[in-house]
Amino acid sequence: MATSQAQHLNGSAPKTASAPLQAKKDFLKVFDQLRGEILDDPLLAGQPDYAHGWLAKMLNYNVPGGKLNRGMAVADVLSALRGDKECTREEKLSADILGWCIELLQAFFLVADDVMDQSVTRRGQPCWFRLPEVGLIATNDSIVLEGCIYRILQRHFRSSPSYGQILELFHETTFQTSHGQMLDLTTTPPGKVDLARYTVPTYMRIVTFKTAYYSFYLPVACGLIIGGKSDDKDLDVAKEICLQMGQYFQIQDDYLDAYAPPEVLGKVGTDIQDSKCSWLIVQALQRANAGQRSIIEDNYGKDNADNIGKIKEVYRQLRLDEVFQKYESESYHSLTSLIQKQNQLPEDVFMLLLNKIYKRSK
Amino acid sequence: MATSQAQHLNGSAPKTASAPLQAKKDFLKVFDQLRGEILDDPLLAGQPDYAHGWLAKMLNYNVPGGKLNRGMAVADVLSALRGDKECTREEKLSADILGWCIELLQAFFLVADDVMDQSVTRRGQPCWFRLPEVGLIATNDSIVLEGCIYRILQRHFRSSPSYGQILELFHETTFQTSHGQMLDLTTTPPGKVDLARYTVPTYMRIVTFKTAYYSFYLPVACGLIIGGKSDDKDLDVAKEICLQMGQYFQIQDDYLDAYAPPEVLGKVGTDIQDSKCSWLIVQALQRANAGQRSIIEDNYGKDNADNIGKIKEVYRQLRLDEVFQKYESESYHSLTSLIQKQNQLPEDVFMLLLNKIYKRSK
Repeated sequence: MATSQAQHLNGSAPKTASAPLQAKKDFLKVFDQLRGEILDDPLLAGQPDYAHGWLAKMLNYNVPGGKLNRGMAVADVLSALRGDKECTREEKLSADILGWCIELLQAFFLVADDVMDQSVTRRGQPCWFRLPEVGLIATNDSIVLEGCIYRILQRHFRSSPSYGQILELFHETTFQTSHGQMLDLTTTPPGKVDLARYTVPTYMRIVTFKTAYYSFYLPVACGLIIGGKSDDKDLDVAKEICLQMGQYFQIQDDYLDAYAPPEVLGKVGTDIQDSKCSWLIVQALQRANAGQRSIIEDNYGKDNADNIGKIKEVYRQLRLDEVFQKYESESYHSLTSLIQKQNQLPEDVFMLLLNKIYKRSK
Repeated sequence: MATSQAQHLNGSAPKTASAPLQAKKDFLKVFDQLRGEILDDPLLAGQPDYAHGWLAKMLNYNVPGGKLNRGMAVADVLSALRGDKECTREEKLSADILGWCIELLQAFFLVADDVMDQSVTRRGQPCWFRLPEVGLIATNDSIVLEGCIYRILQRHFRSSPSYGQILELFHETTFQTSHGQMLDLTTTPPGKVDLARYTVPTYMRIVTFKTAYYSFYLPVACGLIIGGKSDDKDLDVAKEICLQMGQYFQIQDDYLDAYAPPEVLGKVGTDIQDSKCSWLIVQALQRANAGQRSIIEDNYGKDNADNIGKIKEVYRQLRLDEVFQKYESESYHSLTSLIQKQNQLPEDVFMLLLNKIYKRSK
């Protein structure tokens, strides 16, 4: 059942293929509303046209163009929580508003990350800072994106008894993500790779802090808050499952970077030449003999087909594709058993999310 | 009285010259405590040594090294509010903690601004991003600095009835500052100066949003909150006065950039070659005849002694030093009458601040 649902979500069930599209359209309508509110914010009244126009363009360029999985997950969690009972229009709107706050948080980090990593493209277009008129102004734009979150939360949740909890959740997640980023950046200082730092515990920690909290725990926690299931016990259960799911998601990402055909993945992976502390290199270092280790040391982090080929050959010798398949299958079973053994929250809260990512090919 | 107090604060009253020094020492002790709490934050437990060390170094480098006027103003406001009644040790600590949150907010913006402006030095040392091991990692570090604010507020103010108000004050101020920065950056797009944008209303708006809110209104509002004088009416009065004071402060800054002797100012001004939307150029454009305007158009924003000299000659012809003296004196009188005509808050709340900056020479 899980697999078939995963296939369905990958598009093999044409009968209902339009449902996600409609859901995305509805979700984007909420963005239109929120963008309007930001542009008409009384705090910004009187801003000259060119600054107002900059804000509008910057929001459009950086916020709605992603897959929106994180943002839309909030309403999915709420639905799963409700089961057969439909949620009210008001609850659905609250979920989508929090969803857009998550998308804004992601946009804030991505715009800043792209500057730091000197990336070229993002979501099929040049990175925002690559636009000639933008450049390093992108750094301030990322701060503005983050600021929008708290304007939206104040406008829509100030009178809610959950307001404080929501604020602290966003603060905490931002803090965790920035420290994950700090750990990633200091584990791989630019131009100074130290493979001794590429250990399993460090890798898992980077992944957990940099990705899992904001991508999995945050949307689920938001859905639970809207759904009124957010006391400490609920959130503890959700956190344990979501962090493990986020780790699995990032490990897939790292695997696909080297193993997925670029035409399926939609991009050419660059983790090897970028010296990334990727799951693959961590696994390789754990398994390599002296010769293979020396090949890794000589070739990892060099942007050249020959060097990249040598790293991939070590991956092949170590059968990392099989190591990954085994990990993927074990991880799925470990996650489903974790989900089933708890009685705190409906299984669907997590299974819907898990089945969206299980065995994904891009 | 005002002037003599200003002289005293500039150091001409040796009898009490050690008081501010001791106050600074006490304030720095609070930073030591807060830094310890951040480094021991349970959310970061297990962070590898090198990332932990990075955080410690980054905090030391970027937070305590400024003049600390903004941070220390919170306790001054509280004292002024109390008048003869001494404030408790606990209140003083709360004021200083909020003071450090303001210093962290400033550090957050300065670290990011220095990257955006490609600045060279800050507070007598190379800008953080200029350290070879730092570079663009500084952008994430700025995000970490901001995140520390909300960890500190949660730890120290969560159980206070003012917690929500404090959170919203910091959010709002951050939002305003980032939009002031956006207006500044879009008024002066890198390499594309459009002098038509350098108008008095735009200048006043940049200054208000980019500087006055966080430098003057925020410390005063924090002091009023700790002192229990922070209903809407108190804050409205404080905002009107503080924003005007912040404008005056920034106009001084712009004036000193071109007119103060570098050995007094502690740096060489660069507003002219940097095409800054400075008070001086805005005044010059308002007053220039066709010939002077054409000299400005040809020479502003060029990093060359000859070009800079020509701009300064226009300033001289237009007697901008006299224009400034007149503005300064009018501004002081307008501020003092504004302070005196309100009965909402003790005059000293504002006069102490005003006399610290009136006729400053650096």
